[in-house]
Amino acid sequence: MNASSGKVIALAGGVGGAKLADGLAQVLREKLTVVVNTGDDFEHLGLRISPDLDTVMYTLAGLANPIQGWGLQGESWAFMEQVARLGGPEWFRLGDRDLATHAIRTSRLNGGATLTAVTAELCRSLGIVARILPMSDEPVRTVIRSGDDLFSFQDYFVRLRCEVPVSEISYEGSTSARFNRELVGIGAADRPAAVIFCPSNPYLSIDPILAIPGVRDWLRALQVPVVAVSPIVGGTAIKGPAAKIMLELGGPVSVTTIAEHYRGLISGIVIDEIDAQLQDQIEATGAAVRVAPTIMRSTADRVSLAETCLAFADDLGRRLLSRSGN
Amino acid sequence: MNASSGKVIALAGGVGGAKLADGLAQVLREKLTVVVNTGDDFEHLGLRISPDLDTVMYTLAGLANPIQGWGLQGESWAFMEQVARLGGPEWFRLGDRDLATHAIRTSRLNGGATLTAVTAELCRSLGIVARILPMSDEPVRTVIRSGDDLFSFQDYFVRLRCEVPVSEISYEGSTSARFNRELVGIGAADRPAAVIFCPSNPYLSIDPILAIPGVRDWLRALQVPVVAVSPIVGGTAIKGPAAKIMLELGGPVSVTTIAEHYRGLISGIVIDEIDAQLQDQIEATGAAVRVAPTIMRSTADRVSLAETCLAFADDLGRRLLSRSGN
Repeated sequence: MNASSGKVIALAGGVGGAKLADGLAQVLREKLTVVVNTGDDFEHLGLRISPDLDTVMYTLAGLANPIQGWGLQGESWAFMEQVARLGGPEWFRLGDRDLATHAIRTSRLNGGATLTAVTAELCRSLGIVARILPMSDEPVRTVIRSGDDLFSFQDYFVRLRCEVPVSEISYEGSTSARFNRELVGIGAADRPAAVIFCPSNPYLSIDPILAIPGVRDWLRALQVPVVAVSPIVGGTAIKGPAAKIMLELGGPVSVTTIAEHYRGLISGIVIDEIDAQLQDQIEATGAAVRVAPTIMRSTADRVSLAETCLAFADDLGRRLLSRSGN
Repeated sequence: MNASSGKVIALAGGVGGAKLADGLAQVLREKLTVVVNTGDDFEHLGLRISPDLDTVMYTLAGLANPIQGWGLQGESWAFMEQVARLGGPEWFRLGDRDLATHAIRTSRLNGGATLTAVTAELCRSLGIVARILPMSDEPVRTVIRSGDDLFSFQDYFVRLRCEVPVSEISYEGSTSARFNRELVGIGAADRPAAVIFCPSNPYLSIDPILAIPGVRDWLRALQVPVVAVSPIVGGTAIKGPAAKIMLELGGPVSVTTIAEHYRGLISGIVIDEIDAQLQDQIEATGAAVRVAPTIMRSTADRVSLAETCLAFADDLGRRLLSRSGN
């Protein structure tokens, strides 16, 4: 079975990851499973909020706000106006429609449902046919250390607008969290043809998933092509603080640092045409390279990049097979 | 000290009660304390909702929706539209602005604040100078029995639109709930000049307050005039199911049944002009009677009825004094 026609698992976090997940979903439909970072999840105004799950859901449902980069299109803000009037916290903005997701999720979780079950229900209501899974049903919380200060993720990301320098990132709860049960011990029938690391922030979106005990081993045990798409293009990040954090953690800001970061886990990496000259350097990390346009401006760009990833995975799969003696 | 210039405590529930509480607040300002029924409180869509507290708050803030009879004026419904789209429960309607109250309350209660403290904060933000107190910081839940079926209050009131016949009403949790601590053991300086039972539903709004252990004794120990305003006018209820329930519980639907219901607790009752012929019958229950227009259509009506109640309480206070030997 190859990636273009078989089952595929994608790991994703925020906006960039959601865009490629959407491209993959348009090609693969119900054959795609997106495993989403929940390290950004938090409770706010009494509500359980899962920002990355929502970004992926809204993007795959065609409802994401394309300008804001988060939340729903056509959103209204009466709730926030009233929160302000009542002296409540204004730093995290919740749209009137977006609130429905959080309220239903909170209510179902309070009633004992798993985040996996609630997410599946929300996806069904939104007409999403791909499967979206939280990385875990147990809480994992990304914590940012800046010098002697510790910040919760949303504190760092939204309230402080990533302005403090990052000295360390940890994933609270990750040692006791279990990888999503629907993925652990996948049988032969459910085994994917490939795994794709979407162009999400490696430190804030992909690493929290990889920090869950057993995930790295699970990934290796699958023995399928693992293809990453670089979120660093031409020495900077398309969106978000990936480049800033990369610099603060000591790396040169380049796609090579991404390949190094995933060394031993990925079989190949898709890099942008602008970075083509880095191909040899990257291949030295052990990852095969495919050069392609990676900036997704339109829906067609998303589908095209998805197809590039799947074709690349197919080629890598054939190489795996020939190496194992066929 | 008399009721027109001293401190006054009002007991209130829904819309009619909130209107008189508003009239009293306009006359007495910070000298008024409104003790509000919380038997209707419930959790919905993950949020802690206190319908009667909100009705009183919004009414005193001048923000109540005058047509709907609940919620805020100028409300929008984007949240409910999205709840419907996501297949969530639609039977209890939450406006976008109203949600801010519930979210802030839920968040503060989850953080360990008392309902009394949260209510005080919300009132301050809304510029309310009268004090609004939940009857208790512990949960009391009004339960409706209809034959062999038990219904939670909102199930009965909103979902079933009061259509099932009531055979019994009970107040779950009332035996272990404590009366609001700010009222228990009131010192001489805080002792009110009068207590007013607003024209709220006796079974659904006032009785839950009276069901809390010690409240009846507290009321008697105050030794101040207690004036009720009848929610039954001309043999029917101005609003809501009071008349229907009165009939189902076996009483004739009349202001006399109200006086009987509060027998031994109230010193006087304000009845509408249309019921003037019942004065003797009512006085036989032991309550003094004042006849006045009681239907509140305008703000002026609210203030006028408030002034009637306070003047009546003053007269009853003088009688109490003269009886005790002055």
